[in-house]
Amino acid sequence: MSIRAVLFDVFGTLLDVHSVGARADQLFPGQGQRLTQLWRDKQIEYTRLRTMSSRYVPFTQVTEDALQFACEALKLPLDAAARGLLMHEYTQLAPYADAVPALQKLQQAGTTIGVLSNGDPGLIEDVLHGAQIAEYFDVLLSADQVHAYKTAPPVYELGPLTLKHPAHELLLVSSNCWDAIGAKWYGYVSFWVNRGGAPLDRLGVRPDGIGASLADAVDFLLQRRKH
Amino acid sequence: MSIRAVLFDVFGTLLDVHSVGARADQLFPGQGQRLTQLWRDKQIEYTRLRTMSSRYVPFTQVTEDALQFACEALKLPLDAAARGLLMHEYTQLAPYADAVPALQKLQQAGTTIGVLSNGDPGLIEDVLHGAQIAEYFDVLLSADQVHAYKTAPPVYELGPLTLKHPAHELLLVSSNCWDAIGAKWYGYVSFWVNRGGAPLDRLGVRPDGIGASLADAVDFLLQRRKH
Repeated sequence: MSIRAVLFDVFGTLLDVHSVGARADQLFPGQGQRLTQLWRDKQIEYTRLRTMSSRYVPFTQVTEDALQFACEALKLPLDAAARGLLMHEYTQLAPYADAVPALQKLQQAGTTIGVLSNGDPGLIEDVLHGAQIAEYFDVLLSADQVHAYKTAPPVYELGPLTLKHPAHELLLVSSNCWDAIGAKWYGYVSFWVNRGGAPLDRLGVRPDGIGASLADAVDFLLQRRKH
Repeated sequence: MSIRAVLFDVFGTLLDVHSVGARADQLFPGQGQRLTQLWRDKQIEYTRLRTMSSRYVPFTQVTEDALQFACEALKLPLDAAARGLLMHEYTQLAPYADAVPALQKLQQAGTTIGVLSNGDPGLIEDVLHGAQIAEYFDVLLSADQVHAYKTAPPVYELGPLTLKHPAHELLLVSSNCWDAIGAKWYGYVSFWVNRGGAPLDRLGVRPDGIGASLADAVDFLLQRRKH
């Protein structure tokens, strides 16, 4: 079965969030990594809790709530200036080094390319423009359109609805194993970019493809196209 | 409004899970705390991911999957014997010191008492008997009855459906802030037993009551009864 289009996750998949940790470490020396880890964990937790109970608020709000919690838990003083700097950093992310080559290769192959992100539409546009990769995308799909976050099925449903192809003809590429598995559960072909060599989540299924880079994801797609 | 019945969360609320950490530390010296923390985090994550995607498996399975992941992530060799010991430890938990006095006081006050747990029914019965507190409970409600985990509304719906009182006449007591908030979102009166002095989760609402012990939860309930 040929793959008709590819959808990328954004934060941590196309864009490198490590600069947020560097900024956090400037503000709170020695605490940057702990802060960004807890911030990220809480951010994801809050998206899931709000989704299960139908209490959606935009991703930017969830992100700020998680930052406030994380600073309180670590007893770090977060004034308005620090909060502003950290939230702003989130809109100024650099692409991973392998992102532009991968997108170019897909574009040259005539692939329809999009993103499917928890971020709200304004944030997605800002970060893709900021990273100078906006030109590669045919569609920008946001959880905000359905007021639910990954891995809720309505989020993944945006792909087939928008691209007019069934999920099993779409490839979802994510650096989050749970995102690749959620997409797989929904019916996508999915690829996990496992940059850090993490173990596979034990959820009863595995992504269709696993690799260490976006180049591996592109190879996986082009290989499947040949069949 | 009078409260007609109280439902307790089980693991970490009535029963102390620290013994699992002690056992883990015997098996993997110096790693017990890291292992049990990651195990617990993954266990909760997997309940939520499976719930969002309607991929329910029983809590015992989720717990074992999370244990396997955690050991793999920490590069700890988990053979069948170690897995058996750790899983067994989960069925042998001691009650917190304040549990029996709290349950006795509620029973003397004529309160209907139950549990509402992610655990499967067999596990709930085993642990309550093992802790010698089974006699206090009028109802045992399990996420397994609806094949979804907290904080999905169908889990909380078990309370009103079984007890024949609306949620706003039921008290949910949990040591997990997210559980108390999920119950509150559903419509319960909720109480967070914040044993560790954690910050309040930032989800737009707060539990109706917050205290440091089960005794505080009982005081909250009896106080509201007077009105």
